[in-house]
Amino acid sequence: MTAFKIFNTSGKAGRGQVTTAHGTFQTPAFMPVGTAGTVKAMFTKDVEATGAEILLGNTYHLMLRPTADRIEKFGGLHKFMNWSHSILTDSGGFQVMSLSKLRKITEEGVKFQSHLDGSTHMLSPETSIRIQHQLGADISMAFDQCIALPAPEKAVRKSTELSMRWAERSRAAFKKRDGYGLFGIMQGGTNYDLRAFSAQELVKIGFEGYAIGGLAVGEGQEEMFRVLDYAPDMLPADKPRYLMGVGKPSDIVGSVLRGVDMFDCVMPSRAGRTALAFTRQGTLNLRNACFQEDTAPLDEQCHCPACQHYTRAYLHHLFRAGEILGAMLLTYHNIYFYQDLMRDIRQAIEAGTYEDFAAEFFEKVKQQKRPL
Amino acid sequence: MTAFKIFNTSGKAGRGQVTTAHGTFQTPAFMPVGTAGTVKAMFTKDVEATGAEILLGNTYHLMLRPTADRIEKFGGLHKFMNWSHSILTDSGGFQVMSLSKLRKITEEGVKFQSHLDGSTHMLSPETSIRIQHQLGADISMAFDQCIALPAPEKAVRKSTELSMRWAERSRAAFKKRDGYGLFGIMQGGTNYDLRAFSAQELVKIGFEGYAIGGLAVGEGQEEMFRVLDYAPDMLPADKPRYLMGVGKPSDIVGSVLRGVDMFDCVMPSRAGRTALAFTRQGTLNLRNACFQEDTAPLDEQCHCPACQHYTRAYLHHLFRAGEILGAMLLTYHNIYFYQDLMRDIRQAIEAGTYEDFAAEFFEKVKQQKRPL
Repeated sequence: MTAFKIFNTSGKAGRGQVTTAHGTFQTPAFMPVGTAGTVKAMFTKDVEATGAEILLGNTYHLMLRPTADRIEKFGGLHKFMNWSHSILTDSGGFQVMSLSKLRKITEEGVKFQSHLDGSTHMLSPETSIRIQHQLGADISMAFDQCIALPAPEKAVRKSTELSMRWAERSRAAFKKRDGYGLFGIMQGGTNYDLRAFSAQELVKIGFEGYAIGGLAVGEGQEEMFRVLDYAPDMLPADKPRYLMGVGKPSDIVGSVLRGVDMFDCVMPSRAGRTALAFTRQGTLNLRNACFQEDTAPLDEQCHCPACQHYTRAYLHHLFRAGEILGAMLLTYHNIYFYQDLMRDIRQAIEAGTYEDFAAEFFEKVKQQKRPL
Repeated sequence: MTAFKIFNTSGKAGRGQVTTAHGTFQTPAFMPVGTAGTVKAMFTKDVEATGAEILLGNTYHLMLRPTADRIEKFGGLHKFMNWSHSILTDSGGFQVMSLSKLRKITEEGVKFQSHLDGSTHMLSPETSIRIQHQLGADISMAFDQCIALPAPEKAVRKSTELSMRWAERSRAAFKKRDGYGLFGIMQGGTNYDLRAFSAQELVKIGFEGYAIGGLAVGEGQEEMFRVLDYAPDMLPADKPRYLMGVGKPSDIVGSVLRGVDMFDCVMPSRAGRTALAFTRQGTLNLRNACFQEDTAPLDEQCHCPACQHYTRAYLHHLFRAGEILGAMLLTYHNIYFYQDLMRDIRQAIEAGTYEDFAAEFFEKVKQQKRPL
């Protein structure tokens, strides 16, 4: 079991700490994504230096390459990738729908073909939980089904019901061990009643944490916040609530305001490889010619190595020249920026002024040319 | 002027130190190549951590992008790329022949079209020296002409004579400043008399160091060593002798034996991006399936982060998955391996046992499946 302790609250926002077999992490927390056993373009010691205390690994990618059997033989994902802090793995449910080919969904699970070599595989609640165990995840996720929004209510209902039966099988398959936890995933699209049904079913089963799934799949921030106005409240406040795959800085600030404790997203790392910088002045596309002679640091207030030692002109040059160092420095910066944001968020909750913090943040965002 | 001090000799091999405006570097020295203002896939602090004390920058690449005017405006190449130690820049003479399009060579210099955007540029002794000054190079190289070997003797002679006239113009164009030096480049192909002529001309002009150019252009190690059996001896022993663009570890060991003090080569960094590892057991291609479950470190005796924290299986996985971290870790390792080699070489010269060291090294290389 993982443990969750809440130190402070500010409105619906909570300032807490999760304890796992690999230490603690502070919430609200942002988890950088280490899809294939690496946060792309970053050394793990640098991921650590940004303040990240937990990473996300992808079951789908790792089961296909290098395979879960191999990672187990190597002593687990922590050792394999040289990360000594906590790891959460997703269940593969989302990737199998978005990346694999020739899927067949039955009550049993999902049969699919690898996007790498066309080989056939099966993911079910039981196989997903076993694989996450082999990887050595501190936090495993229940295997669920994700459908793209918008979708007809009937389809969302059918999918949500299936996911709840899979949640129960995931719980049964999970071997309870000290320091290791299993999170259930709420589904239900943008439908209040389905969200309530899903929450009820999950709570009945009982998990160490609860994720809100099926959002950030194209519905837009306004619609997402509309669901988050009620969804987190349907889940136990004494367990961490985790919004999967989110998001932009403003998504995170607005979601914490609505009671969310944990986040993950490829955005800062992917942006780092495509010359998109997150700064306190909004986002910047460093390929833009306006940075050719800009000798200012990326973000005056940032303490990351990219901002401490280099100019925007240098970063622009690296991206124009197609240099790997561009992706290295900007990924470092973006992950650092996200962890700075989480530090600011946690501080504001501790001070009991989170609502002011969020209001101010959205005020600033409104004035940004390329908003966060 | 840069200064050169020799501490020990062992046969023809010398153990020395060069002092520039940005500190000292120990010889024999290997300079990692930072073509476009970055040693590809490495943070400068990590380049420093390998023990490298001097980098090579490419005039041709930097004059085209971001341009020498910009780098000068930014405060020079050291500041631009965050490297506080010495920098040597080449003259652009080699790259203009191998990379640019539509070249026209006259007594004045080389008119060429940029390989990036087709724009027209001129490199001459005067412009090359001015650009290297703008970049802030501690050591500038005379502008010369390189021809591919094998070539008819007449062509080599003509080219060598032109290069010597350009060497004189380079010397005249170079502004003497404390801590900054200019190296002349010996040409002459594989022809003894032309090498002797070239050396004579250069010594008449007088430089702070002498490079041996026109080798490692496809003639093979045996032929190269044949030239190096006499070429370094034609140059003053109280100035550093620099073999340009060399090479494999065995090239370096054999060249030091023949009196060479300085080297540069893209090999360790380029290999690091293409899964080729330099180890004490020879080279390894990490993409090879035999490493899929190899839990040994890359090189048991290496203290770099790739060898300290990861398995060959992990590095194999990174290259198979196309992960940037693979290039990052392996480039770090390869540059570290080269600097370890230079440390071993310097130690053997200090001990006065360099000939034994070299003989042992070549004995080992003979037994390697993929030799160094």
